[in-house]
Amino acid sequence: MLFGRIDHVGVAVEDLDAAVELYSRSFQMREKHRETVEQQGVEAVLLEVGDGHVELLRPLSEDTGVGKFIARNGPGLHHVAYATDDIDSALGAVRDAGLRLIDEQPRTGIQGSRVAFLHPKATGGVLTELVEPAH
Amino acid sequence: MLFGRIDHVGVAVEDLDAAVELYSRSFQMREKHRETVEQQGVEAVLLEVGDGHVELLRPLSEDTGVGKFIARNGPGLHHVAYATDDIDSALGAVRDAGLRLIDEQPRTGIQGSRVAFLHPKATGGVLTELVEPAH
Repeated sequence: MLFGRIDHVGVAVEDLDAAVELYSRSFQMREKHRETVEQQGVEAVLLEVGDGHVELLRPLSEDTGVGKFIARNGPGLHHVAYATDDIDSALGAVRDAGLRLIDEQPRTGIQGSRVAFLHPKATGGVLTELVEPAH
Repeated sequence: MLFGRIDHVGVAVEDLDAAVELYSRSFQMREKHRETVEQQGVEAVLLEVGDGHVELLRPLSEDTGVGKFIARNGPGLHHVAYATDDIDSALGAVRDAGLRLIDEQPRTGIQGSRVAFLHPKATGGVLTELVEPAH
C-alpha cells in the first residue's frame, strides 16, 4: 500500500479569517497550526478532522501558485495530499510508474513534514501531494 | 465534533478506465465499489485509501453537474466529503449556522449512504458533502 490515508485537502482562500471562522465555528474543526510557508508562498492554517486535516491556503502574493490558482479558478479545492511513512519510497514508486513530478525530491513542508507534488497533467487534473509527517 | 473524518475526495474524470488504472495501479489503491448513481448523473468508482476513499466520477451526460463541471474546469478535484454518524443532526447544525444548502434533506448516495451537499457559495467555493455511511 503506497498511501496510508488522505492526509489533507488543501483549500485556496482569499479571506483567511473568514475561512477559519467557517471551518472552526460552523464545521467545529479545531485549529491546530498556523504557519507562513515562504517557499510555497502561502499563509497556511491546519484544522483537524479525524486523523486528517483541512489546510487553508492564503497566497502571500498574486504571483504564487495559489495566487495564480485563485486568479484562474476562484477560491476552492486546490489539492489533495496522501500520507506515507516513507516518502522517498513512495515517490520512487510513483516515478517508476512513469508519472510526471513537480518535485523530483521531497522538500520541507508545513510542520516539518516532507512533501512532494505530482504534476496535475499526470493525475487527471488533480494536484496531488505526498506527505510524510514529521515524527 | 461535527465530522469524524474526511470520507472521500470526489474527482471528476473524462476517462474512467484511465483514472481507475492510475489510482489502482500507480497509487496502489484497491477498487472497492462501482455504481451508476442516476440521480447524480454519474458512474462512480470508489477506491480505498486508509479508512477513506477516492471517488472517481464520470458524468453520464454533459448536462449533469459533473458534466458541467468538466466543461467549465476540465477534469479534477470536484468535492470533499466529511463523514458523520448522524447526518440529520450534522445537517441541522450546518443549517443553524446559516450556511446555504443544496440538499435541505439527506438523500441516498452511493452504497446506500445518506448524503447532503452544501452550496459552494457558502463554503468558499468548495463543494462540500456530508455523508453518513450505511451501517
